[in-house]
Amino acid sequence: MKKAICISIFVITCMMGHSLFADDGYRLWLKYDQISKASTLQSYRNSIQGWTVLGESKTMAAVRDELKRGLSGLLGVTTPQLMTPENRTIIVGTVRNLPFSLQVKLISRLDGLGPEGFIILCTAINKKNVTIITANEETGVLYGVFHLLRLLQTHSEIEDLNVASSPKIRLRLLNHWDNLDRTVERGYAGFSLWDWHKLPNYKHAYYKDYARANASIGINGTVLNNVNTNPLIMTPLYLEKVAVLADVFRPYGIKVYLSVKFSAPIDIGGLNTSDPIEHRVREWWKNKAEKIYARIPDFGGFLVKANSEGQPGPQQYGRTHADGANMLAEALAPFGGVVMWRAFVYDHNIKEDRAKQAYTEFKPLDGKFRDNVLVQVKNGPIDFQPREPFHPLFGSMPQTPLMMEFQITQEYLGFSTHLVYLGSLFEEVLDADTYARSQGSTVARVIDGSLDGHTISGIAGVANTGTDRNWTGHLFGQANWYTFGRLAWDHQLSAETIAEEWIHMTLSNEEDVIQTVKEMMMVSRENTVNYMTPLGLHHIMGWDHHYGPAPWIKDKHRDDWTSVYYHRADSVGIGFDRTGTGSNALSQYYPPVESMYSSLESCPEEYLLWFHHLGWDHPMKSGRTLWEELCYRYETGVQGVRRMQSDWETLKGRIDEESFRHVQAMLGIQEKEALWWRNACLLYFQSFSKRPIPAELEQPNKTLEYYMNLSFPFAPK
Amino acid sequence: MKKAICISIFVITCMMGHSLFADDGYRLWLKYDQISKASTLQSYRNSIQGWTVLGESKTMAAVRDELKRGLSGLLGVTTPQLMTPENRTIIVGTVRNLPFSLQVKLISRLDGLGPEGFIILCTAINKKNVTIITANEETGVLYGVFHLLRLLQTHSEIEDLNVASSPKIRLRLLNHWDNLDRTVERGYAGFSLWDWHKLPNYKHAYYKDYARANASIGINGTVLNNVNTNPLIMTPLYLEKVAVLADVFRPYGIKVYLSVKFSAPIDIGGLNTSDPIEHRVREWWKNKAEKIYARIPDFGGFLVKANSEGQPGPQQYGRTHADGANMLAEALAPFGGVVMWRAFVYDHNIKEDRAKQAYTEFKPLDGKFRDNVLVQVKNGPIDFQPREPFHPLFGSMPQTPLMMEFQITQEYLGFSTHLVYLGSLFEEVLDADTYARSQGSTVARVIDGSLDGHTISGIAGVANTGTDRNWTGHLFGQANWYTFGRLAWDHQLSAETIAEEWIHMTLSNEEDVIQTVKEMMMVSRENTVNYMTPLGLHHIMGWDHHYGPAPWIKDKHRDDWTSVYYHRADSVGIGFDRTGTGSNALSQYYPPVESMYSSLESCPEEYLLWFHHLGWDHPMKSGRTLWEELCYRYETGVQGVRRMQSDWETLKGRIDEESFRHVQAMLGIQEKEALWWRNACLLYFQSFSKRPIPAELEQPNKTLEYYMNLSFPFAPK
Repeated sequence: MKKAICISIFVITCMMGHSLFADDGYRLWLKYDQISKASTLQSYRNSIQGWTVLGESKTMAAVRDELKRGLSGLLGVTTPQLMTPENRTIIVGTVRNLPFSLQVKLISRLDGLGPEGFIILCTAINKKNVTIITANEETGVLYGVFHLLRLLQTHSEIEDLNVASSPKIRLRLLNHWDNLDRTVERGYAGFSLWDWHKLPNYKHAYYKDYARANASIGINGTVLNNVNTNPLIMTPLYLEKVAVLADVFRPYGIKVYLSVKFSAPIDIGGLNTSDPIEHRVREWWKNKAEKIYARIPDFGGFLVKANSEGQPGPQQYGRTHADGANMLAEALAPFGGVVMWRAFVYDHNIKEDRAKQAYTEFKPLDGKFRDNVLVQVKNGPIDFQPREPFHPLFGSMPQTPLMMEFQITQEYLGFSTHLVYLGSLFEEVLDADTYARSQGSTVARVIDGSLDGHTISGIAGVANTGTDRNWTGHLFGQANWYTFGRLAWDHQLSAETIAEEWIHMTLSNEEDVIQTVKEMMMVSRENTVNYMTPLGLHHIMGWDHHYGPAPWIKDKHRDDWTSVYYHRADSVGIGFDRTGTGSNALSQYYPPVESMYSSLESCPEEYLLWFHHLGWDHPMKSGRTLWEELCYRYETGVQGVRRMQSDWETLKGRIDEESFRHVQAMLGIQEKEALWWRNACLLYFQSFSKRPIPAELEQPNKTLEYYMNLSFPFAPK
Repeated sequence: MKKAICISIFVITCMMGHSLFADDGYRLWLKYDQISKASTLQSYRNSIQGWTVLGESKTMAAVRDELKRGLSGLLGVTTPQLMTPENRTIIVGTVRNLPFSLQVKLISRLDGLGPEGFIILCTAINKKNVTIITANEETGVLYGVFHLLRLLQTHSEIEDLNVASSPKIRLRLLNHWDNLDRTVERGYAGFSLWDWHKLPNYKHAYYKDYARANASIGINGTVLNNVNTNPLIMTPLYLEKVAVLADVFRPYGIKVYLSVKFSAPIDIGGLNTSDPIEHRVREWWKNKAEKIYARIPDFGGFLVKANSEGQPGPQQYGRTHADGANMLAEALAPFGGVVMWRAFVYDHNIKEDRAKQAYTEFKPLDGKFRDNVLVQVKNGPIDFQPREPFHPLFGSMPQTPLMMEFQITQEYLGFSTHLVYLGSLFEEVLDADTYARSQGSTVARVIDGSLDGHTISGIAGVANTGTDRNWTGHLFGQANWYTFGRLAWDHQLSAETIAEEWIHMTLSNEEDVIQTVKEMMMVSRENTVNYMTPLGLHHIMGWDHHYGPAPWIKDKHRDDWTSVYYHRADSVGIGFDRTGTGSNALSQYYPPVESMYSSLESCPEEYLLWFHHLGWDHPMKSGRTLWEELCYRYETGVQGVRRMQSDWETLKGRIDEESFRHVQAMLGIQEKEALWWRNACLLYFQSFSKRPIPAELEQPNKTLEYYMNLSFPFAPK
């Protein structure tokens, strides 16, 4: 009897332990809660009765910690660490630390997998069944361990594993637009994770969890500071702090990079020029690189925004972007560092369509960059809109490794209060066919280097992380971080598969819950396109902060920072003519793409107003006029959000209560704002179209003036 | 055998549950972890076998939640909620909801306890032993429940409770110096808790925990925004957000207040004046008050910084502070709101000692304020220094309720990286004798209203909270928030008693651990005085941000924002002569105080250089010269920090590992910075004294120039 009481007390304590810790989202997709399905749990416990991690480096210590934490959490029992392999155990280590018989077996298979690839293999040694996780280098081993844990988290079969995986892209980076005062440009999840004032002496516990999260999805680099950069980051005071972060991240295979200011030789170097041709400027950078590498031997390199939106650059001295990039590349080359030179440039003195300017500037420079330079190109030719066609530079600079720049933070996609799964957006861009060499010359093949045979390749995501306890503000923002990393590792994965993984790991392992959430995620981006910028509309959001609709923005100091520049609505119609009769931006694409978008027959309606200015009564595929279709699309977006709301309600009691309420509140905001977008845009465009909103649709209950007078003085920006 | 396995699995799961959730400090002193001492646990479980909470309001729901959470956590079992009182249970409710027999018994005892006081009484009804927690109003009941939980958390006897408690001060407020962009002036724990952009639609879960924490220590009001205020806070856009916070806080007995800008009628009202005598200005404020109360019926009132450090005020129109305050008071009076008018004013056009100016301005206004005005006075006449004598206004305005303004955030006390327990500072000020009426006219009796018979009274603490996961940056910052609340409730409590409570609730219930931590806390403030500003020195910290030592600051646009203004070091000696031969600031104190500080014999050495300019060879009580004593005091401060470090090391393995490492890292920073303070100050003062640092003391290993050249461009400020 006494024993029974003892048991029951422990049971009660256990269960309360759970309920006391409502899920605040901090653990991201690395929850490692005990497997809830009894049969799966039992089967895993049977299969994994111990483990051995070979090696004592910091990375191997991280591997050991993660495996121990993951297994003890998921299996709910302490799985013993063993000295020698027993039956039904896991053996983890680089190939050179494995028993000789295994080395012989695996070394050739590892040949093509590089320093980051790994193998997971169920096999037998000395008649004992073991699971081997191995790789050429320790980081590969770490990735392998995270892969195995993911298999457990997603309740996958682990009996006869035979996995070989390596990343398709070499540099897989987060770009943090974080300022030294801890504000984050376009950050919507609190403030910068980097507590510069307390560094180098105090290291927040979350720095390591940031590294764990990134390593778990294969991210291997992080640019710590904003591309609109403060040169102080390169002074000894800050480099000492950067070095400490690098030390925390290094065991997780993550290199640090810095955004640098082209005028740094003047700003902090005491020179009177930053002309890249000048010897003393080049020497200054070489010297600076030496100083950085003395502190951080595996420093990744520089990211540069030059001659763009007020940032200094080589053109001030009559030099080209290549001159500028090559000077920095020369300084970094002895240490193996790279320069990531952004192609996001446009000049308001040039009357040319902004969509054309990056191509115009960079295409002629193809072949002129040093081999440790990558040109970093945003996914579309304008600026991270809810939908853009792919950037015409992809496929157009075959002699230059082009790096993809995606935006994970939702600058133009509802900040951190709208549920928008970006997996669909990333996939759409990666799968787009440039026709650069022939059919199948996808953007993915441009950036992974396979199309043009580059050995260096890269992809960057502008981070959505911040000090908010759940890292990303919106719980579903975590999915966008996750999907970025997973696609960076393997762009052949589908957005849907990745969504499923993430739901498994974050919300539930129940099939019907997964299905419901996945459906919400998969329609979410199209919903947002519809309630914000349907049919190819773009850049019609609030001035400067980009919060909410503002298609009426005009008369700013530069045309291409207004909304009217982009939508060109008038009494006749709406849209930006980028065909031969207009800006002819389409001429920057390869002929099959150009002709598809040029022709009103073949241009997908999703891109219609991006490329064409059309009359309000232009007939659409639906049989409606363009104006009616616009009304319907906006309405569809709002209805889509309402459907997400009702779908979410069905999950009450099925997922963690705090997570449920959090998303429920966020969906409430999204519904309000979707309606705001719809009404404000339709009322505004109606002032040109002079046509009624179809009577069967919900009519706006406020005036255009009401919406135009709204003001948000402290909206994040 | 099967059973045994089952038990062991559960045990393992339980223990892992604990280790997976390292203590990040979020739960503050409301941890409610299961009582570790078996006999105490058993005794509490025996005594508390159920509970009843009477009443269904939001406050009573909060009471119910808290009691349930606290008991289930502390006792480790689910204690049943009962419909009728049973033996060994707790009955909770306002007196009018209690059974009639209890009402009769308690109503007269509750008479003097007001709306916030409570009674906890062990008694019998129908021969059943019960513990009653009751009060006149629901907030009192809530305070009573937190009191009982504190007794459990501190392992106190609960068998024959007979507690009657009510607050000595009516308004117990936090002042948040939080800006609308979420930066916090003098905030060192991340950014503002108030996520204005997501309000009113999204409420962070932590808003409620903020309210719980405050209610648990009796804080009943919060000023949400900075005294250097943005008038937009009073526009409908923001009032809607404020109202939502008020809704979250209301069940916890916490009222919201706002800092208002005196020029608001111009800034957001479209008037061309804010002259308090003008009818339209008065009407504007009345109208604004009506609008606020329409949204927030229990709105607390306004806090005002006027004619100070650039803020607008009535003096611009030739009116007095009383004219300004009374205008606002008139607008708030119909709704029961108060005005808290800050006495922190000084004018750089006046050559008068800054320490004298507040008194000079406010003393003549005594008796001229409306009865819903409190004048809010900082504890000392300068600005929250490590040590100041009490402000001469205390005791000097008998017809005016003076409110205390303490600073919990450590602007001048090491930001959030130095362990400085402020209980000692608060206690020193509250216990100081003003001699206003006779001996025993303590500052505490001035501000609690008992000295001069005021019915309204108040105390404010400038908050040290922010978005850092542990709320205050430094774990021991929590103790300063805690002690402020406890002293605001009852200034008779000793700082030491409160420290003990806090350690019990936060770190450990082991006697030796408590003793060690308490000793660290109790010496910590004197340590900091010694390594920063010993012997009455003040305001010699870094320009503007106040980070680190900078006694060399001079030649700024106002004298009293320099360091040399305050320390007045020269070849002869050091210190600010505030006696009759100097600024005569001492004349503002009552004669016994004045004569004590005036005489070199009776002036405590802690205040020596605050009041006297003395030669470098002035003989001190120790037998040393002033210069030597200065050196020894600085040294003592550094050694004190090192002693805290070694004391802390003895706690390894005795307290939560994450908390241990966190404080250990912080103490490392404190030691570095204490040494920095010591060396920089001594080298600087030595440039005047021309005397050696005694050879037996550690000699600085850097030059004065080194320290003077340090620069911290993004230090928080």
